[in-house]
Amino acid sequence: MLDIRFEKTTAPKEIPDEDNPLVFGTIFTDHMFLMDYEEGKGWHDARVVPYGPLSLEPSAMVFHYGQEMFEGLKAYKTEDGRILLFRPDKNIERANRTNERLCMPEIPEEDFLAALKAVVKTDEEWIPTKEGTSLYIRPFLIATDPFLGVRPSNTYTFIIILSPVGAYYPEGLDPVKIWIEDEYVRAVKGGIGEAKTGGNYVASMKAQVKAHEAGYSQVLWLDGVERRYIEEVGAMNIFFKIDGKIITPQLNGSILPGVTRDSVIQLCKDWGIPVEERKITIDEIYEAHKNGILEEVFGTGTAAVISPVGQLRWENHIMKVQDGGIGELSQKMYDTITGIQLGKIEDTKNWTVEVK
Amino acid sequence: MLDIRFEKTTAPKEIPDEDNPLVFGTIFTDHMFLMDYEEGKGWHDARVVPYGPLSLEPSAMVFHYGQEMFEGLKAYKTEDGRILLFRPDKNIERANRTNERLCMPEIPEEDFLAALKAVVKTDEEWIPTKEGTSLYIRPFLIATDPFLGVRPSNTYTFIIILSPVGAYYPEGLDPVKIWIEDEYVRAVKGGIGEAKTGGNYVASMKAQVKAHEAGYSQVLWLDGVERRYIEEVGAMNIFFKIDGKIITPQLNGSILPGVTRDSVIQLCKDWGIPVEERKITIDEIYEAHKNGILEEVFGTGTAAVISPVGQLRWENHIMKVQDGGIGELSQKMYDTITGIQLGKIEDTKNWTVEVK
Repeated sequence: MLDIRFEKTTAPKEIPDEDNPLVFGTIFTDHMFLMDYEEGKGWHDARVVPYGPLSLEPSAMVFHYGQEMFEGLKAYKTEDGRILLFRPDKNIERANRTNERLCMPEIPEEDFLAALKAVVKTDEEWIPTKEGTSLYIRPFLIATDPFLGVRPSNTYTFIIILSPVGAYYPEGLDPVKIWIEDEYVRAVKGGIGEAKTGGNYVASMKAQVKAHEAGYSQVLWLDGVERRYIEEVGAMNIFFKIDGKIITPQLNGSILPGVTRDSVIQLCKDWGIPVEERKITIDEIYEAHKNGILEEVFGTGTAAVISPVGQLRWENHIMKVQDGGIGELSQKMYDTITGIQLGKIEDTKNWTVEVK
Repeated sequence: MLDIRFEKTTAPKEIPDEDNPLVFGTIFTDHMFLMDYEEGKGWHDARVVPYGPLSLEPSAMVFHYGQEMFEGLKAYKTEDGRILLFRPDKNIERANRTNERLCMPEIPEEDFLAALKAVVKTDEEWIPTKEGTSLYIRPFLIATDPFLGVRPSNTYTFIIILSPVGAYYPEGLDPVKIWIEDEYVRAVKGGIGEAKTGGNYVASMKAQVKAHEAGYSQVLWLDGVERRYIEEVGAMNIFFKIDGKIITPQLNGSILPGVTRDSVIQLCKDWGIPVEERKITIDEIYEAHKNGILEEVFGTGTAAVISPVGQLRWENHIMKVQDGGIGELSQKMYDTITGIQLGKIEDTKNWTVEVK
C-alpha cells in the first residue's frame, strides 16, 4: 500500500461558483500529488501537498528531450454524494504503455490508483455537481535529470493536478466541423503516435491553427505513409456510421488507444450494432457520403465524451452529416456513457471506481 | 539594441579543473540568460542572472504539449585570448524555423545574437582552453501558459545556459559503430523531423537503447514511409564517400538541417570534391560496400564536429568502413573545421563571430 504524506494547505483558495462558466483547464484545486523516481532507488516520497509551482533545473531533461507522459480522466459526484472515477485502470495501463515507449519508468498500477484517490479525496469539495461538469484529473510524468546528453533520464517526477471543468457543451451536444488534413502529418507507424506525450500534440498545432483559420474546430489526420487512411481527430478518436454499421480505425501503432473509444465499441456490441475496427480510407468516406449512406460521424474523448461531427472538409469537398445535426446513436451513446459516469445508469460493466 | 539587465552572482562556483575530464552537459556556469514573451506585449525583461532553478506552474504547457525548441553551439577561446562563436547565425535561423513549425514566437536575430554574446562574455572565465574543449551553449524556448487546453501557448521563456565540455574524443578521433534501425521511426515528411525539439529526441530513445545493448553507439534512421532511404544519425547528419564522391541525404523536411553538415558541404566544394545532396537508399550503401567503393562514412554535429564511422550494421549485415579506422577526408575535415573554430586556420568564409 502506497505510503502517502499529506501536507494540507494553510491558504485554501475560493472554490469557483459553478453558475459561472468554468473554462477548461484554467483553474486548479488546493492540492496536488507528487512522487519522485530515481534509478536504483525506485519510486519514493509520495505526497499530497499544496498546489504550487515546480522548481526545476534549467538543464532538466524534460525541457530539452521531450520525455513527458500525460493522461486525462475525470471524477464525478453522483446525486447521492458518491465520487466516481471512470475506468481509471485504462488510463493507468495506457500511461505505462507510454512510459515504456518513451523509456520512462513504470508506475505500479495500485500506487497510481491510490494516488488518484488520495488527491481527489483531499480536494473532493472542488468536484462540481452541475449537469455536465466534473473534476478533470491530469496525471503527468516528467524527466528531471540535470543533463544535456541524449539518453533516458535517471530521475523523474510524477504529478497529479486537478481542475474543475464545466460542461463541454453547455447548451447540449453541439456538432463540430472537422478539417481533413492532407499536408501535415501527426504520426507514423514505428513512431510515438500511440503514446500520450507532448511531442504528438506540438506536432498537431500548425494544422490546428490552419483549420481554425478556415473555420473548422478540429483536424482529422490521415496516415503518414499513404495519406489515405483515417487516423484520429486532434484530441479524439473517430467513428463513422455507414449503412447501419459502425466503423473506426484500428489501433495500428500511430493512433491513441482511447478509453472512450473502447467504451463505445463495447456498448455497440452490447446493443447488437455491428462494429468494425479496421483500416478506412478517406475515399471510402467520400463515397459513402456521395451515396447517402454516411449516417453519423462522431468523435470520442475524455473531454467531450461524444462529439457529433456535422461537417467534414476534405480538399474542396464539403460533406455534411445528419444535415449538420446530431445522430440518434451519437445522442444515445453520450447519454449512456455520461449516465454511467454520473451513477444515473446502472454500471453493469464495473467501469466506475468509487473514491471513498 | 537589446536592453539586458545584469544581476551578477554573489556566490560564484568553482571553475572545474580542465585536467579532470569534463563530462558533457553536467556542469553549468555561474549565469544564464532569460527573456520572456507574452502575446501582445512581445519579448521583454531580457536578463543575465545567476544560474538557478526555474519556477513553473505544474500546468505550464511545456510539461504537457511539447512546445519546446532547443539549439546547441559552442564558444571557443583562441590562443591569443579571443572568444569565437562558430556560425551562430545558422543556429539562430534554425531556431526560428523550429519556432515557426511549432507555433512559437520568432526571436529577433539580432537579439538572439546579443543574448548569446552577453551571457558568454559574462562567464568567459568558464571557457576551457585545453585541446578539444569548449563552452557548450544551450539556448532553449519553452511554453509557459498555465493551461491544459491544446493550442499554442501565449507566453514563453527563452533561456540560454552554458556548460564547459571536454574533448569529445580525448584520445583523438575514434570511429563509432552505427546501428541501422528498421523497426522504429524517428520522423516522417509532413511531421516535425526538421525541427530541433524534444519530441524528435524522445522518439529516438527506444532504438538508441536497443542499439546500445547490441554494442552500437548510435542509430542511423531510415525514412518513415518506405524504410529504405537514409535520413540521419541520432545526433548527427551522415556523409558517405563512395568512389571518390561525397553523398549526403538531401534536406527533405524530416531531417535536421545541421550547421556542421552545411560547413562540410561548403568545404568539399572548395576542395573540388564532388558533393551530392540527394536521396540515398540503404541498398545503395550495401552495394557500394560489397563492391569495395564505400570509402568513408562520417557523421557531423556540433558535439563531435566529425565522427568517423568504422562500422555499420543493417539487418544481419556488418559493413566495416576503412577497416574500422579513420578516413583521410574525415581527418582533414575535422582538422579544418576545428582549426577555424579555434582561430588556428584563417576564416576566409567569415564563419566565426567574435565575442567582445
